Amino acid sequence: MSGFLFTIVTVLLAAKIGGELFERWSQPAVLGELVSGILIGNLGLAGITALDGWKTNESLALVAEIGVILLLFEVGLESELGELLAVGKSAAAVAALGVIAPVVLGYSVSSWFLPGSQWYVHLFAGATLAATSVGITARVLRDLGKIDTGEARIILGAAVLDDVLGLVILAVVSGLVRSIDAVGTAKLTIGPLLTITGKAISFLILAVVAGRLLGGWLLRVGSRARIRGMSVALSVSYCFALAGLAEVIGLAPIVGAFAAGLVLNESHFAGYTRMCARRFEEIVLPISSVFTPVFFVFMGLKVDLRSFTSWHVVLFAAGLSLAAIAGKQLCSAGVFEKGLNRLAVGVGMIPRGEVGLIFAGIGSSLAAAGKPVFSSDTFSAMVLMVMVTTLATPPLLKALFGKQDSQTSPRGAIGVPADTREKSGGRESRRRYKPRATSKPS
Amino acid sequence: MSGFLFTIVTVLLAAKIGGELFERWSQPAVLGELVSGILIGNLGLAGITALDGWKTNESLALVAEIGVILLLFEVGLESELGELLAVGKSAAAVAALGVIAPVVLGYSVSSWFLPGSQWYVHLFAGATLAATSVGITARVLRDLGKIDTGEARIILGAAVLDDVLGLVILAVVSGLVRSIDAVGTAKLTIGPLLTITGKAISFLILAVVAGRLLGGWLLRVGSRARIRGMSVALSVSYCFALAGLAEVIGLAPIVGAFAAGLVLNESHFAGYTRMCARRFEEIVLPISSVFTPVFFVFMGLKVDLRSFTSWHVVLFAAGLSLAAIAGKQLCSAGVFEKGLNRLAVGVGMIPRGEVGLIFAGIGSSLAAAGKPVFSSDTFSAMVLMVMVTTLATPPLLKALFGKQDSQTSPRGAIGVPADTREKSGGRESRRRYKPRATSKPS
Repeated sequence: MSGFLFTIVTVLLAAKIGGELFERWSQPAVLGELVSGILIGNLGLAGITALDGWKTNESLALVAEIGVILLLFEVGLESELGELLAVGKSAAAVAALGVIAPVVLGYSVSSWFLPGSQWYVHLFAGATLAATSVGITARVLRDLGKIDTGEARIILGAAVLDDVLGLVILAVVSGLVRSIDAVGTAKLTIGPLLTITGKAISFLILAVVAGRLLGGWLLRVGSRARIRGMSVALSVSYCFALAGLAEVIGLAPIVGAFAAGLVLNESHFAGYTRMCARRFEEIVLPISSVFTPVFFVFMGLKVDLRSFTSWHVVLFAAGLSLAAIAGKQLCSAGVFEKGLNRLAVGVGMIPRGEVGLIFAGIGSSLAAAGKPVFSSDTFSAMVLMVMVTTLATPPLLKALFGKQDSQTSPRGAIGVPADTREKSGGRESRRRYKPRATSKPS
Repeated sequence: MSGFLFTIVTVLLAAKIGGELFERWSQPAVLGELVSGILIGNLGLAGITALDGWKTNESLALVAEIGVILLLFEVGLESELGELLAVGKSAAAVAALGVIAPVVLGYSVSSWFLPGSQWYVHLFAGATLAATSVGITARVLRDLGKIDTGEARIILGAAVLDDVLGLVILAVVSGLVRSIDAVGTAKLTIGPLLTITGKAISFLILAVVAGRLLGGWLLRVGSRARIRGMSVALSVSYCFALAGLAEVIGLAPIVGAFAAGLVLNESHFAGYTRMCARRFEEIVLPISSVFTPVFFVFMGLKVDLRSFTSWHVVLFAAGLSLAAIAGKQLCSAGVFEKGLNRLAVGVGMIPRGEVGLIFAGIGSSLAAAGKPVFSSDTFSAMVLMVMVTTLATPPLLKALFGKQDSQTSPRGAIGVPADTREKSGGRESRRRYKPRATSKPS
């Protein structure tokens, strides 16, 4: 027990220290958590091998998995289904192009660098490049005072659709890999492809329909209960139940968690806030802020810095980064409005961040024909791609939007509890520019 | 993964449904969680054996263990060190008598019913009877409008000391059992007894001294951090670190968790609240309200209802219950003030509840000479004792304090979020009658 406790304490503190330092250096906190993990995971290079067991520690893996499930639940909670359906023509076109192009480019780069690998490895590599982590862009645009521009609205609208498309692709690709593993054939046939796509889409639709009925009931029961903690227990149960269900039907648990969040968010608007029910985000935040950083540290642990002594890995990472950046530039073709800075839209879609890491993590844990889809080298290259795209975006955006508003972000004022401020560089920041009708009675 | 997720969801929902039902029947929620566990654990009697594996499920055991650590952290947070040191003469005498008498009586009952067992089994049985779970009494007294009486103040003051004494006894007894297991001799010698007592007391003192320095720093860092969730991560880390440390030096992890809470509570008064830092209790509550119920359900799972078909077990449970009740009646000898209802003080100390369950759980998981200290039958008898003492107290108190105020508890008003109301029948209720100087600057 004490071993487990000390491991969690170290990981948690490392994550928070890394996150806080990066934040103070005006970088996304999630990269700080990742770098902390990379440092711990490569202590072996400095002769310290005592912590090497953590990479395969099952309890830590369990906590990390719960962390990523809760993270996607939060992402779902913060994505508004209503807005998603009512999103502008440009945002939809930007999202679609911004998913298709990186998948195609990523597939090509992967087949160039890994000629001996099967088609599904390349497809998974392409899928990892698909989804934007818009929190970083949103933060930079807010700091620049540009959050209300047309460009920002398109980027933020597209990013929500982007998440959904990315998760459908993940569901399909990982479903295909699982069916390959079961059947033993690596040929892409139309049958399983259709089955899995159908499964993924109908799961999302069913979850939304069921959740519309359930969400309001959950809030009502939670706020009327006499025992404490009913709301948080019900929210977490609902998230875990859908995550488990997703896995049972052959999808990734995070797809279920995302669907659970998407639905509870929506039901929030049904008027239950008049009963003083707290918002689900607030209910879930204290738990997810303990579990989620463990996931990012755990991803960092798996990065072997020695991979980067190989030119092949470094060039592969560079190729993936270029594909990731170029792929999103095609987005700008989807901007129909005139007078907008199309380059800025494309640049705003560049950061990969947490979603890219999640895909890379799944790629390295899924196995087909006895081998993991992503080798240790591929995983390391993917993590480097995530870091490059995430770090490159803020300076590019600042340059594009001019320097007139280049004041730095509002400093964290002493006296404001950190937990009520936005998480910077993360999903949290979405909330700011999409104020909810939380006080509006139905 | 989906197996784990579904297990947690079922356990959590069962706990909350049981807790809510008991609460609505004016019974402590913790008993509802326990009964849910007992029902699930004995589905085998109805021919449903699918869930039998849960009793030995390691992931569930881990979650339950974290739950009990967080519970004791909360108990510590709610016990005020200042009040504890300044507690009245009567409360101190009541606490001391109320610990010694049940230990002696419990030892005697155990040696009568288990003549073949070693002395440490009887000592552990006595220790399990030591600590009062005062939340239940506090709730009843508040509902009766008697929370400001002299009797209530003595009971509540004594209960805090009671927790500390109980944990010291637990530390000593479980330390002795561990040393027996290591050395292989079952003779009680003065050497290890002194070593372990010294360890336990110096651990508590050191934790308090170190924590006084650290607590304020933790709050300050937490409230100044730019990333979200720093406060909750630091609080949980501190609790886990002390719990792990306690285990390393041979004490139970909950002793460390309690010490961590005791200290952070104290530092709270040092004036950091003016920086808008949230109270630690509020920070920890959402996490503990997910983990803690799992512990009580898990304890319930381990109760084998078939034990109660044996007259020996039923009589043993009855004997233990009598010892628990009679032991606390000696308390009243410690009431020095005149004109107080001494019987009411004794009755108010009767409920065992969560602390008794924790001790029983440790007793059944600790092994000496290859055998668990508490057999399955002894564990079941202990759980029955906890249920009897907890259920018997409210009607007895109501009868003693007269019927003039016998209105039922304030109904959970719709519109008040459940999470901000007190947890009834639990530790939470202590807060109500000890308002903190949370808004007072230092």
